[in-house]
Amino acid sequence: MPIVRIELWEGRDNEQKELLIKEVSISVSKALKIPPEQVFVLLYDVPKSHWGIAGIPASKKR
Amino acid sequence: MPIVRIELWEGRDNEQKELLIKEVSISVSKALKIPPEQVFVLLYDVPKSHWGIAGIPASKKR
Amino acid sequence: MPIVRIELWEGRDNEQKELLIKEVSISVSKALKIPPEQVFVLLYDVPKSHWGIAGIPASKKR
Amino acid sequence: MPIVRIELWEGRDNEQKELLIKEVSISVSKALKIPPEQVFVLLYDVPKSHWGIAGIPASKKR
Amino acid sequence: MPIVRIELWEGRDNEQKELLIKEVSISVSKALKIPPEQVFVLLYDVPKSHWGIAGIPASKKR
Amino acid sequence: MPIVRIELWEGRDNEQKELLIKEVSISVSKALKIPPEQVFVLLYDVPKSHWGIAGIPASKKR
Repeated sequence: MPIVRIELWEGRDNEQKELLIKEVSISVSKALKIPPEQVFVLLYDVPKSHWGIAGIPASKKR
Repeated sequence: MPIVRIELWEGRDNEQKELLIKEVSISVSKALKIPPEQVFVLLYDVPKSHWGIAGIPASKKR
Repeated sequence: MPIVRIELWEGRDNEQKELLIKEVSISVSKALKIPPEQVFVLLYDVPKSHWGIAGIPASKKR
Repeated sequence: MPIVRIELWEGRDNEQKELLIKEVSISVSKALKIPPEQVFVLLYDVPKSHWGIAGIPASKKR
Repeated sequence: MPIVRIELWEGRDNEQKELLIKEVSISVSKALKIPPEQVFVLLYDVPKSHWGIAGIPASKKR
Repeated sequence: MPIVRIELWEGRDNEQKELLIKEVSISVSKALKIPPEQVFVLLYDVPKSHWGIAGIPASKKR
């Protein structure tokens, strides 16, 4: 009954998010030997302005 | 000083969220025998397209 | 299909945690008008030494 | 630069967790078309006594 | 390689968030004696209507 | 009323964690111009075996 939470940079389209949900669910199901129905995946879009690396928002990186 | 975080499907109105905050705070307060002032509740609306079950976004389920 | 996460100070016994899970699940179920089977509650025990308020671990407060 | 957090029931051995990290990282990398070096995966073991379903800890379910 | 997540009330401007990312990254880097490149900071704006204290949304407090 | 959550590799001693709580609380307080009493900091020790980078647990990295 695992719960997967993925934080990713804002900007991916729904098609790619759908693929991400699918692929990760299959991986978790296989690795833990559980039916895919038991896998939950929640995606969080985080704006680059809200994601700091080395003290600087990713939106300001070149 | 418990912190409660609730992820729910996007689409509830503010009235229902307010009720949710109220009821959960009372429950936590009673179960842990602490004053309600010490209970924090944070709600996260998650779009159905970002919530996968069995590898498929909830927005695509029938 | 809400997911509830509760962070609380380490030290409660299992009986109290069981009551907490029960009461919160009922509250969420009622407030959102969904069957209790759809409510997940995860508890996290946080040591007081790992929980800072006003810059000081709760374990050091009098 | 996605961050993946997986909550799972306590009790898996390290070998299975290692496989889980590997498979999920590959899936994320492929689905998002990013190098695997940019994928972080954090696992959280949650005791069944701390994981409630339908108001009852998973440790009490038959 | 610490990951810092900060939930704050919605309404701060980007300049202040940028300062927050900077200052927190420096603090973590110094306290843990690691290079700032290894510090990640993610900000979450939470609407006051979604942040309950003592059973009442912060948006309803006077 | 910000809530800060920091995930770090297991193995730091309590003295260093106390310093981390202190420094981060001061930074948040200053950057957001709020009294330190309103800042909460929660630390999570994550074992290196549970923290994957590039598909490999940090415990297996050289």
